[in-house]
Amino acid sequence: MNLLAAAIAIGLAALGASLGNAWVIQRTVEGIARQPESRGFLQTTMFIGVGLIEALPIIVAVFAFIILFTK
Amino acid sequence: MNLLAAAIAIGLAALGASLGNAWVIQRTVEGIARQPESRGFLQTTMFIGVGLIEALPIIVAVFAFIILFTK
Amino acid sequence: MNLLAAAIAIGLAALGASLGNAWVIQRTVEGIARQPESRGFLQTTMFIGVGLIEALPIIVAVFAFIILFTK
Amino acid sequence: MNLLAAAIAIGLAALGASLGNAWVIQRTVEGIARQPESRGFLQTTMFIGVGLIEALPIIVAVFAFIILFTK
Amino acid sequence: MNLLAAAIAIGLAALGASLGNAWVIQRTVEGIARQPESRGFLQTTMFIGVGLIEALPIIVAVFAFIILFTK
Amino acid sequence: MNLLAAAIAIGLAALGASLGNAWVIQRTVEGIARQPESRGFLQTTMFIGVGLIEALPIIVAVFAFIILFTK
Amino acid sequence: MNLLAAAIAIGLAALGASLGNAWVIQRTVEGIARQPESRGFLQTTMFIGVGLIEALPIIVAVFAFIILFTK
Amino acid sequence: MNLLAAAIAIGLAALGASLGNAWVIQRTVEGIARQPESRGFLQTTMFIGVGLIEALPIIVAVFAFIILFTK
Amino acid sequence: MNLLAAAIAIGLAALGASLGNAWVIQRTVEGIARQPESRGFLQTTMFIGVGLIEALPIIVAVFAFIILFTK
Amino acid sequence: MNLLAAAIAIGLAALGASLGNAWVIQRTVEGIARQPESRGFLQTTMFIGVGLIEALPIIVAVFAFIILFTK
Amino acid sequence: MNLLAAAIAIGLAALGASLGNAWVIQRTVEGIARQPESRGFLQTTMFIGVGLIEALPIIVAVFAFIILFTK
Amino acid sequence: MNLLAAAIAIGLAALGASLGNAWVIQRTVEGIARQPESRGFLQTTMFIGVGLIEALPIIVAVFAFIILFTK
Amino acid sequence: MNLLAAAIAIGLAALGASLGNAWVIQRTVEGIARQPESRGFLQTTMFIGVGLIEALPIIVAVFAFIILFTK
Amino acid sequence: MNLLAAAIAIGLAALGASLGNAWVIQRTVEGIARQPESRGFLQTTMFIGVGLIEALPIIVAVFAFIILFTK
Repeated sequence: MNLLAAAIAIGLAALGASLGNAWVIQRTVEGIARQPESRGFLQTTMFIGVGLIEALPIIVAVFAFIILFTK
Repeated sequence: MNLLAAAIAIGLAALGASLGNAWVIQRTVEGIARQPESRGFLQTTMFIGVGLIEALPIIVAVFAFIILFTK
Repeated sequence: MNLLAAAIAIGLAALGASLGNAWVIQRTVEGIARQPESRGFLQTTMFIGVGLIEALPIIVAVFAFIILFTK
Repeated sequence: MNLLAAAIAIGLAALGASLGNAWVIQRTVEGIARQPESRGFLQTTMFIGVGLIEALPIIVAVFAFIILFTK
Repeated sequence: MNLLAAAIAIGLAALGASLGNAWVIQRTVEGIARQPESRGFLQTTMFIGVGLIEALPIIVAVFAFIILFTK
Repeated sequence: MNLLAAAIAIGLAALGASLGNAWVIQRTVEGIARQPESRGFLQTTMFIGVGLIEALPIIVAVFAFIILFTK
Repeated sequence: MNLLAAAIAIGLAALGASLGNAWVIQRTVEGIARQPESRGFLQTTMFIGVGLIEALPIIVAVFAFIILFTK
Repeated sequence: MNLLAAAIAIGLAALGASLGNAWVIQRTVEGIARQPESRGFLQTTMFIGVGLIEALPIIVAVFAFIILFTK
Repeated sequence: MNLLAAAIAIGLAALGASLGNAWVIQRTVEGIARQPESRGFLQTTMFIGVGLIEALPIIVAVFAFIILFTK
Repeated sequence: MNLLAAAIAIGLAALGASLGNAWVIQRTVEGIARQPESRGFLQTTMFIGVGLIEALPIIVAVFAFIILFTK
Repeated sequence: MNLLAAAIAIGLAALGASLGNAWVIQRTVEGIARQPESRGFLQTTMFIGVGLIEALPIIVAVFAFIILFTK
Repeated sequence: MNLLAAAIAIGLAALGASLGNAWVIQRTVEGIARQPESRGFLQTTMFIGVGLIEALPIIVAVFAFIILFTK
Repeated sequence: MNLLAAAIAIGLAALGASLGNAWVIQRTVEGIARQPESRGFLQTTMFIGVGLIEALPIIVAVFAFIILFTK
Repeated sequence: MNLLAAAIAIGLAALGASLGNAWVIQRTVEGIARQPESRGFLQTTMFIGVGLIEALPIIVAVFAFIILFTK
């Protein structure tokens, strides 16, 4: 039951992080396709955004590995 | 059963935080692609917004770790 | 079973608060990108709105911690 | 089982109140971004609306606390 | 089981009333943002509409409190 | 089990009536915002419509109270 | 179990009838807001339509009351 | 269990018939609001259409009453 | 269990047939509202289409009555 | 359990065939309403398409009758 | 349980094949309605496409009949 | 239970392959309807795409037949 | 239970890979239909994209075959 | 139960990664079809994006293989 709990948590986190990252990156790609000269600002914002989005899912991954190895 | 409860809570929180952050950041990227000269205001608002969105999920993460270590 | 109840409640509240905050903040970002000169009014309204949205989820978080520590 | 009932009720109420408030507030933000000079009327209507939306979820919260403390 | 029944009923009612009120109020806010001079008629219609929408959920809330206190 | 049946029926009815009323009323508000001079006809139609929509949910509410008090 | 069956049937019927009526009535309201001079034909069609939509849900309500009183 | 089967069948049929009728009738209302002079043809087609849509749900209602009275 | 099987089959068939017929008929109504002079061809196609759509649900209804009377 | 299996299969097939036929036929009706002179080609394609769509659901119906009569 | 497995597989396959065929054929009908002179190429592509879409569902039907007759 | 596992896998694969193929082929049909002279390139790309989409579902079908014949 | 786990994993992977590939390929087909002269770049990007999308589902297929043959 | 947990986690991760990659790559294909001369920047961003999206699902795959081989 413990592994099932960890798997549900990490699965939802991976689903959310993948979709969230994909939305941000596809807008960045559209922005570069529309204005190639401002791709520096866009990529900087994209990296900051991906970092902020990944924050909580990484915590969930740590949470899941703690359950996996200590129980 | 306790771990399952914690996993559901932290999984939903991670899903909500990832999607919510992604929506805010992609609008910021679009705004910068449309008006590169006002990216200071946009990024400031983006950081404030991400902080406000992350508030409750972080509480949920704390909630989950309390269940994990004290039970 | 008590923890499961608390986890469902706090999970739904975190999901709702994250998505609700994200919708308000992304409209604010769009508004600033369209009219940078009126960002004072927009940010003021945004802070009031985030406070009002967070009201009930915070009550739910309190509700959940009462279940966690007294049972 | 009683706590589970209270948690489902308060969770749905918090979800509904957060999303409902967010929809009203984001329209207000859009309205202010479009017409900054009429933000008094808009904010007045917003506060009345948030109050009306919060009415039933607050009753549900009271309902849940009665279950929590008397059973 | 009785409390679970009451909680499901009052939860669905609170969800429906919050979303329904929010839809009416956001259209009112949009209408005021578009025509500030006719906000009297709009607010009058809004109050009548909110009253009509709240009618059945209030009956459900009474229904739930009867279950809560007499069983 | 009887109360659960009554709660499901009255909950679905309240959900349907709230959303249905909200759709009619928001169209009325939009219509008044677009043509303030014909708000008499619109409000008359709105009251007839709300009455017709409420017909079956009221029957369901009566159905639920019969279960509540006679069983 | 009989009451549960009746409740599911009457709940779905009330949900369908409320939403169906609401769709017809909101189109009528829009039509009157667009052409106030032809509101006679529109209201006549609306009453016929509401009558036709209500036909089967009323049969379901009768079905449910037969279960309620004879079993 | 027999009544539950009948209730599911008649509930789905009522839901489908209400929504299907509502879609046809709202298009008819829109058509009359756009061209009042051709409302004869439209109403004729509407009555034929409602009759055709009601065909199978009526059979299901007969099906359900047979279960109700003979078992 | 047999009746439950028959009820699920006939319920899904009635739902599909009602919605499918409604889609075809509402397009026909729109077509007549746009071009009243070609309503002969449209109604002919509508009757053929309704007949083709009803084919399989009628087989399912026969299937369900066979279960009802022979088991 | 065998009949339940057959009922699920034939129910899904009837649902899919009804909706699929309805989509094809409503496009044909729209095409005839737009270009009455090319209704021969459109109806020919429609009959071929309906035949191809019905192919697999008919196999499923045969599948279900084999279960019904031989088991 | 074997028949239930076969029924789920063949039911999903029939649903997918019907909807997939319907999407392809309705685009073909729209294409012919827009350009009657190039209906040869369109119908050729349509037949190839329907054949490719039907490939896997036919395999699933074979799969289901093997279960039906050999177990 | 083994056959149920195989049936779920092959059913999901058939559903995904049918819908995926249908999306690609209907875009090809639209492309040919818009530019008949470039139908060679479009059909070539279509065949490559269908082959790539079918790759994993074919593996799943092989997976299911292995379960069917060796267990 | 092991085979059920493998089947769920490989089924979700096949569903995701089919739909993901289909989205990429249909955009490529649209791009070629709009600009036939740049079909080299588009097909190159399409092949790279399909390879990247297939990466994780292939791992899942390997995962499922390991369960199938070693357990 | 352990394998089921691993399968759910890796299945959700594969689904999320496939769809997320597909969204990014299809925007890239659209961008190249619109501006072939800036395909270098677009492909660079696409590779970075795919790498970032794949990060967490790869961790989940590792998580699943650890469960598969050590338990």
